[in-house]
Amino acid sequence: MPGIFISFEGPDGAGKTTALNSLLPKLKALTTQEIVVSREPGGSPIAEKIRDIILDVNEEGMDDRTEALLYAAARRQHLIDVILPTLNAGKIMLSDRFVDSSIAYQGGGREIGEKEVASINDFAIDGHLPDLTIYFDISPEVGLSRIRKDHQEAMDRLEKASLDFHERVHDSYLKLVKANPERIQTIDANQAPDKVVSDAIKSMQKRFPNVFNGGQ
Amino acid sequence: MPGIFISFEGPDGAGKTTALNSLLPKLKALTTQEIVVSREPGGSPIAEKIRDIILDVNEEGMDDRTEALLYAAARRQHLIDVILPTLNAGKIMLSDRFVDSSIAYQGGGREIGEKEVASINDFAIDGHLPDLTIYFDISPEVGLSRIRKDHQEAMDRLEKASLDFHERVHDSYLKLVKANPERIQTIDANQAPDKVVSDAIKSMQKRFPNVFNGGQ
Repeated sequence: MPGIFISFEGPDGAGKTTALNSLLPKLKALTTQEIVVSREPGGSPIAEKIRDIILDVNEEGMDDRTEALLYAAARRQHLIDVILPTLNAGKIMLSDRFVDSSIAYQGGGREIGEKEVASINDFAIDGHLPDLTIYFDISPEVGLSRIRKDHQEAMDRLEKASLDFHERVHDSYLKLVKANPERIQTIDANQAPDKVVSDAIKSMQKRFPNVFNGGQ
Repeated sequence: MPGIFISFEGPDGAGKTTALNSLLPKLKALTTQEIVVSREPGGSPIAEKIRDIILDVNEEGMDDRTEALLYAAARRQHLIDVILPTLNAGKIMLSDRFVDSSIAYQGGGREIGEKEVASINDFAIDGHLPDLTIYFDISPEVGLSRIRKDHQEAMDRLEKASLDFHERVHDSYLKLVKANPERIQTIDANQAPDKVVSDAIKSMQKRFPNVFNGGQ
């Protein structure tokens, strides 16, 4: 495929969404290729409908495996509707979360098992892994305290879970980083926001020097 | 588990839902155990919400793998909310469709592959297969002509698919019957409705003689 697929990953409160918004104009100045940004779960009309079921705070009775299957379903549709058409058109696709989030959150956090969750996601993505994953690493304590300060009123079902849960998510992410040293690049998200953004851009430039070359 | 789990399977137009409604009062007269009836996809509030997304005729852009993952998600929630509590209470659970429908419809009919669809369903059901499956066998031609006569105006997305599709579904069901001779019992659904119902009841009595014993 002619395009480039980059995912942004990390525990809640790592600041990856904020970093993504800040780095976008800088990244656009570095390349002539068009950049498309999307988020998971969601990113297409059918995927957004599935997202609404997943994130409804009233769905207290939702089983963990149901949730994992819904995330995989939303991801599949996001891939078909947004990611593959973007890559086929030779554009750069930035996705806020992708398959690693499910392995870390449902596999590790919810304790379904990383292998089990990876298997249903293999079915969903059918080989289409990102070319590069930027992992924003932060300790579970710092991540959680940031979430609580930012939007205590609007915590969704996932964010309400305990510190234990967030520690398991963090452990799973570290295992994924270790198992995929080529694909996943770690950024220290404890640093000042400007430094986080510049590290993320450097990481992308290092991996794709001919794409992010200042538009030359 | 103290209860009994029986699923009803078959291609569209085999008449299994009609048969299920007709045999229910007769079955109730044969046992002292309480009988609970449910249907897939759906059967619980969260599962019904997922069903609404699956069966929406306007969702023309839904990918086949998304659909298969949504069926597995609805099945998981149906299992947790309805089937397992029914079995744990020592009752008899009759489910109109279960895991074999996904293998036949998505795996065979939609050509995703039976093994692939079985694998995401293994994740969903986590070992909870029916004790007995009554398979209502009918040729794709007869099945389709029955659907078209019955409710031409209200065909859903699945029923609109072609005869080729229904032939692949039928082939997959026959493979499942062959691979699971203990669990799946075949009923000839080309027969008169009364005969179909009495054959289904006989099949259940043969498998569970101490349960369907006339209430003795």
